[in-house]
Amino acid sequence: MSDDKLNRYDAEQMQQWATACISATGASDEVAAALSAGLVAGDLLGFKTHGLLRLRYNLQCLSEGKSRKAGQPEVLQQRPAIELWDANLLPGPYAMNLAVQRAIKLAQQQGTGTIVMRRAQHIAALAIYLEQAIDQDLLIQIFAATPSQQVVAPFGAKTAVFSPNPFAIGAPAVDTKVMFDISLSMTAAGKIRTAIAEGRELPYPALITPEGDYTVDAKSFIASPAAVIASLGGEQLGYKGTGLNLFSELWTLALSQYGRADAPAAEGDANSVWIQVIDPSALGDIGNFKQQVQAQLEAIQTATPITPEQLVRVPGQGAMQRRAEQLANGISYSAAIIKQLEWCAQQYQVALPAPLGG
Amino acid sequence: MSDDKLNRYDAEQMQQWATACISATGASDEVAAALSAGLVAGDLLGFKTHGLLRLRYNLQCLSEGKSRKAGQPEVLQQRPAIELWDANLLPGPYAMNLAVQRAIKLAQQQGTGTIVMRRAQHIAALAIYLEQAIDQDLLIQIFAATPSQQVVAPFGAKTAVFSPNPFAIGAPAVDTKVMFDISLSMTAAGKIRTAIAEGRELPYPALITPEGDYTVDAKSFIASPAAVIASLGGEQLGYKGTGLNLFSELWTLALSQYGRADAPAAEGDANSVWIQVIDPSALGDIGNFKQQVQAQLEAIQTATPITPEQLVRVPGQGAMQRRAEQLANGISYSAAIIKQLEWCAQQYQVALPAPLGG
Repeated sequence: MSDDKLNRYDAEQMQQWATACISATGASDEVAAALSAGLVAGDLLGFKTHGLLRLRYNLQCLSEGKSRKAGQPEVLQQRPAIELWDANLLPGPYAMNLAVQRAIKLAQQQGTGTIVMRRAQHIAALAIYLEQAIDQDLLIQIFAATPSQQVVAPFGAKTAVFSPNPFAIGAPAVDTKVMFDISLSMTAAGKIRTAIAEGRELPYPALITPEGDYTVDAKSFIASPAAVIASLGGEQLGYKGTGLNLFSELWTLALSQYGRADAPAAEGDANSVWIQVIDPSALGDIGNFKQQVQAQLEAIQTATPITPEQLVRVPGQGAMQRRAEQLANGISYSAAIIKQLEWCAQQYQVALPAPLGG
Repeated sequence: MSDDKLNRYDAEQMQQWATACISATGASDEVAAALSAGLVAGDLLGFKTHGLLRLRYNLQCLSEGKSRKAGQPEVLQQRPAIELWDANLLPGPYAMNLAVQRAIKLAQQQGTGTIVMRRAQHIAALAIYLEQAIDQDLLIQIFAATPSQQVVAPFGAKTAVFSPNPFAIGAPAVDTKVMFDISLSMTAAGKIRTAIAEGRELPYPALITPEGDYTVDAKSFIASPAAVIASLGGEQLGYKGTGLNLFSELWTLALSQYGRADAPAAEGDANSVWIQVIDPSALGDIGNFKQQVQAQLEAIQTATPITPEQLVRVPGQGAMQRRAEQLANGISYSAAIIKQLEWCAQQYQVALPAPLGG
């Protein structure tokens, strides 16, 4: 990434600005704070396609009544270790924080705690929710799917069945943590849109054309008829990614009993999620557990690199480094993102902070 | 697979024969029945590398005291929704059945039920355990790792950190079921050994040589120094498979607090597992849940195939078809497998059943 050439913005100023924009829609203070914090947290970790770039979409949802401006998720069903919630289109980061906190409480009581939640509006990057559990010495796992979207093909098909399904885990270690957040497909829609905007091809064949050919042509994704995204594993091992996508959608859409036949297109990016927190102290000494995690990470880090100067990376390490760097030097935003933010500033009459050292 | 040219053997006769061999080691009736049933069940589903081919290994473990001949797993720790068990080297299929049954009971009470179990001797194919839960209208997820093995490299490395980690899920639908069982690497050790035995190359680059090159050369896996297996995703997306392997090993080795520093090489194929069962009826009507699963499967099956004559497959469909076919016509075994079975027959003085229609 050529972030160095981009303008930098102070993270706290950007969050306050975003909070003011969200409040201007009439959203409650709690909703505004959670949503702005969630989007900026995504930017800090480097998930720029899931950060303030999506503020405009979220503001529009709030203004148009597609997102609720205040309130609580509803608990539909429960047993001691699992609950089904309906977020009733509350903004994702607000509903997700509540769900993660509840899953943590269940895990501390029962050993594991699970919240299956339907109809959380755009939930941004899964990685932003992991540390609430990790920093309390807990394991966490999150799946999300989007019942109104179908852009990912099962293995052997050239038409789409699945949504772009992200998956994330988090774990505490002795002096670091694991944060892992991926899509279960060959690429993500945001990456394709970025490639189109920059006039680039994809780095490898991740799309399948209507003719059934694997392609690097990003623009085929917005052609008519459009190409679809291949499941993780691609042309040779796509049956593995297909099963992983099915895993995600059964654990989210099927368990929440809110699948594609139920979700109206008007709900847009509303997500269904599976959040599970596990308390390792239920099974033994927490210090020993964290040493086991640490040993795993050290084994990865000390594996012999294929390219000597390129050290083997541990999941989450890069994101945490990007956050530390951007907290120190400001968040870098591309001109395309700033254009979206200026739209928000003008629409909601809250002046965008000036870039740092500009 | 060119199974048609192979000799066929009656599944029930083979299971009785294997039971007799296992009993000849002094194993208890319960252990013998569970182990023989598990291995034959793997063969029936088509997991021939995890079926009776491994009887010899299991018999040797029992005879040499590497597997326990009788007894119960020990419950080390528990909270209402999760328990840590030590199988104390009981044969895998025997200990796994007990653990799955306990996870089912916990799920029916708490909504989810999890057993983390260390030191289960060779657990065979994960797929053979899924239907105990599925057929009671439950979801199931299983991870297994092998703390004494390191043959899979993290992304960017040419040395191994992970064991070959299988992963399986199961789910009930209206008139079918989901059964999905994969390794989280580019290929499995059994497939490499089969390719070597048949003098074939691998169908795609799944191994990484000591020089750091991706290769299709199966024999490099048994060279000295040996090639290692790449994580799922390979040269381009191997960071995804690395995270999935880490997911598996944290949920099995770290949670069971029995990692590579603890497991002596003498424990061989002893596995650590994560078994989680979820009761969908905790979150809503079970009939509606199964319809949601069915709708997902139908969406996959009716996706437009890339190759018109090759219908898009649902995970588990092929395995269930192989089982039905082999129950009707006998299990097909290669000459290489029969050679192993004849060794067992001679060693334990139990005559191998004759092939069908031979």
